[in-house]
Amino acid sequence: MAPTYKLYYFDVAGRGEIIRYLFAYGNQSFEDIRIPKDQWPEHKKKTPYGQLPVLEIDGQPVAQSYAIARYLAKKFNLVGKNDLEALKCDELVNTLEDLLQKGLKYFFENDPAQKEIQGKQFFDEAVPYYLEKFEAIVSKNGGYTVGSQLTWSDFSFAVTLRELENRHPGLLKPYPALSGLVEKISNLPSVKAWREKSEQKK
Amino acid sequence: MAPTYKLYYFDVAGRGEIIRYLFAYGNQSFEDIRIPKDQWPEHKKKTPYGQLPVLEIDGQPVAQSYAIARYLAKKFNLVGKNDLEALKCDELVNTLEDLLQKGLKYFFENDPAQKEIQGKQFFDEAVPYYLEKFEAIVSKNGGYTVGSQLTWSDFSFAVTLRELENRHPGLLKPYPALSGLVEKISNLPSVKAWREKSEQKK
Repeated sequence: MAPTYKLYYFDVAGRGEIIRYLFAYGNQSFEDIRIPKDQWPEHKKKTPYGQLPVLEIDGQPVAQSYAIARYLAKKFNLVGKNDLEALKCDELVNTLEDLLQKGLKYFFENDPAQKEIQGKQFFDEAVPYYLEKFEAIVSKNGGYTVGSQLTWSDFSFAVTLRELENRHPGLLKPYPALSGLVEKISNLPSVKAWREKSEQKK
Repeated sequence: MAPTYKLYYFDVAGRGEIIRYLFAYGNQSFEDIRIPKDQWPEHKKKTPYGQLPVLEIDGQPVAQSYAIARYLAKKFNLVGKNDLEALKCDELVNTLEDLLQKGLKYFFENDPAQKEIQGKQFFDEAVPYYLEKFEAIVSKNGGYTVGSQLTWSDFSFAVTLRELENRHPGLLKPYPALSGLVEKISNLPSVKAWREKSEQKK
């Protein structure tokens, strides 16, 4: 019997979305618990390390978004066809995270002078540096980040690039293979059905 | 036949050390290539994403320290005895990285006022918050971070906590189980032999 899964996160995409997408893809039911901001200080004390997402697997709480995503990816055959492809998934997920970190630094900066410096670094340097490399990989692989089949790295790219595009519309425009990947994952029938159901609740 | 491995990193422990420790543990020969600082700007252009470490596996370069470490951990049976233990390894490695990030922010801060604020946050809040939790886990598991056997998470803790202790002697003193883990891993016969050989070269 499959374990019982409860996902605790906030009512945003953020670091919970890849986990939700993977559950949807695997047709695995889970409780999608969204902690309201005003309950967070109280809930925080009950988490393993003061952060969300936390996934409860048969009542046992586990933290760290990518750790959870990789675990689910194994269950749903999304870690590539051998150890080397699993390694390439991890490499790409972590490298995209490096880019995301630079982006978050910019998006959350309040000081206008600092924000301008970080915006330059992000949009003029980091974004083209990384996205040109990723674009070439996905283009060469016929629409996949790793090998020639779906992996959890594709899911990570879809949710992260969608988040960056939402925060800065047009960011993905020069990258057709990456834009196509975001669309492909978001429109996988089970993922799309889950997204529509989850939108209706709001 | 085992692949040919070439590790490119700087002549420091940093993010290369866990990979070196794992190769030593697995008795797997590898080329330990240390790029001198003055050659870095030139070498950087040849890396996949402008960063080190890079591991060449039969000539194919792969980036990202933890991705590489996890790949080697699989080869050397260091990913726990099932998927749930592999998940716990990933959770702990990533959580320790969260602590390390806060430490590096402090250690590399140049502005004295900022450094004082970050030092307070790091030593008075982050260090006890995380290390008390880790200490309890390692103590409960009889000297291991995950389950009751060696995993690559133990290696990650050994090199990261050693690095923090080196930068701030005494930091680990209140945590006997964590100190013991650092000693245990550093003194595994193959790791110790490798460390002594590598020290002699200097």
